[in-house]
Amino acid sequence: MSNNITGHTQLACLLGQPCAHSISPAMHNEAFNQLDIDCTYLAFDVGTDTLPEVVEGLRKMNVLGFNLTMPDKNLMCELCDELSPAAKIGGAVNTVKNENGKFIGHTTDGTGFMHACEAAGFDIIGKKMTLLGAGGAASAILIQAALDGLTEISVFNIRDAFWDRAQNLVDTLNNETNCKVTLYDYEDPSILNREINSSAILTNGTSVGMAPKTDACIITDTSVLRPDLMVFDVIYNPEETKLLRLAREAGCRTANGLYMLLYQGAASFKIWTGQDMPVEPIKKKFFDR
Amino acid sequence: MSNNITGHTQLACLLGQPCAHSISPAMHNEAFNQLDIDCTYLAFDVGTDTLPEVVEGLRKMNVLGFNLTMPDKNLMCELCDELSPAAKIGGAVNTVKNENGKFIGHTTDGTGFMHACEAAGFDIIGKKMTLLGAGGAASAILIQAALDGLTEISVFNIRDAFWDRAQNLVDTLNNETNCKVTLYDYEDPSILNREINSSAILTNGTSVGMAPKTDACIITDTSVLRPDLMVFDVIYNPEETKLLRLAREAGCRTANGLYMLLYQGAASFKIWTGQDMPVEPIKKKFFDR
Repeated sequence: MSNNITGHTQLACLLGQPCAHSISPAMHNEAFNQLDIDCTYLAFDVGTDTLPEVVEGLRKMNVLGFNLTMPDKNLMCELCDELSPAAKIGGAVNTVKNENGKFIGHTTDGTGFMHACEAAGFDIIGKKMTLLGAGGAASAILIQAALDGLTEISVFNIRDAFWDRAQNLVDTLNNETNCKVTLYDYEDPSILNREINSSAILTNGTSVGMAPKTDACIITDTSVLRPDLMVFDVIYNPEETKLLRLAREAGCRTANGLYMLLYQGAASFKIWTGQDMPVEPIKKKFFDR
Repeated sequence: MSNNITGHTQLACLLGQPCAHSISPAMHNEAFNQLDIDCTYLAFDVGTDTLPEVVEGLRKMNVLGFNLTMPDKNLMCELCDELSPAAKIGGAVNTVKNENGKFIGHTTDGTGFMHACEAAGFDIIGKKMTLLGAGGAASAILIQAALDGLTEISVFNIRDAFWDRAQNLVDTLNNETNCKVTLYDYEDPSILNREINSSAILTNGTSVGMAPKTDACIITDTSVLRPDLMVFDVIYNPEETKLLRLAREAGCRTANGLYMLLYQGAASFKIWTGQDMPVEPIKKKFFDR
């Protein structure tokens, strides 16, 4: 429909700073076109200083919905009329649905991880995960994994600025889900090895190993990489981090974070339109190299 | 570029209530496409109750600019940071240009009339016009014609709700332009005939003769329709009003208001982009039947 915009065409958009580089407009416009949905998706460079005014404007413009990226996700949480369980727990919103002027906040970042695991053939429901990191991406993964039925998650972090927030999040998840979540100090390698050994999946949720520092690897004792361990790295530049290469060489099944972007977008799309994004053609067109 | 929207694509739009039926999105998107300008044009149903919030949102979203239609044109005048001379005199804004967060208000409705006259081969600069009506469309025509160098304009109106506003406008134009403008009561046919007889162009700026009441004609004494009189009717539904038919039969050159829409849009486009809208292909694609 972007070929054929009329006065009836609705707006969906991305707010963030920066956001012009985002693949979201290409992805969502392709999906709107393929499903003949009369909506167009743009990106607006909006920081937290102007977010409240833009959000009120979008409400009065009756947009279909919108996405948020850094640095707007936390403030958006306060600007919503209602929140999904995952958005409420995490205090972050990346997707807003307009329901007749009421703004419902969701987060689909963790959903993107769960669907990327599914697409990679990782069967992790009912199993245990070791998760490295407690920043934005790792927190989103942690929350959705706990909500979606992993039985146990061991989170490792250094005692950095995120530690206290991570401890609070862990406490909340232990109270509000059936998942047993524990926060460990990354310092002690014996505990890390023990937890990985009893996990079905190891997930790197930190930026260690990302370009340009591709020589870095968050796992130093590769003996933990046993063949039946699934290894997920949220990094997708490089496509195969040192962690994933070592894991592959050890016989592990591996997956990177590239499709998390696709699946978080697909989850937003479903929230707005009620329809499934045609992920296969979009994967081919925008994600596969 | 609407084929190929990315995170860099800018927004332009129309605000009004209703506005979904407008031809402006089709017209401007076609022009953006043809000139390879990375911008997309949408329409948002916005009334005066929500206009201030939407305008602030659009400012913070850094839009290229926007159009306004009923009922937002007058209130927008108060929301602008600066006004063009025509917008200031008329108290109405149909085009806003975003200059680094500063909103400059213009009105291109009257410009649309002047360009439509030019396209019809009506040479009216330096000449006298009789103008029927003093509502929104007629006022825009009156202001731009006075600013653009008609020497004399006789405005006829009944003593309705617009009379006092019309008298104020006429006084302003006499003070601020070199055009001699006089407001007459439509009641006296001898004055009307006298003024038409000394005019080069007769313009109907009222809705008399518009579908469905196509039998109506604002001129009852057709003896005023002499062959060298140019006759313009702002109505374009029907394409040829009874007034235009009678004028044509009397040998007058005639033009309707259809291209006013095109040329007011082209003038907005020029204000936003600095470029000329490719009017000929757009005329063929959207205006000619």
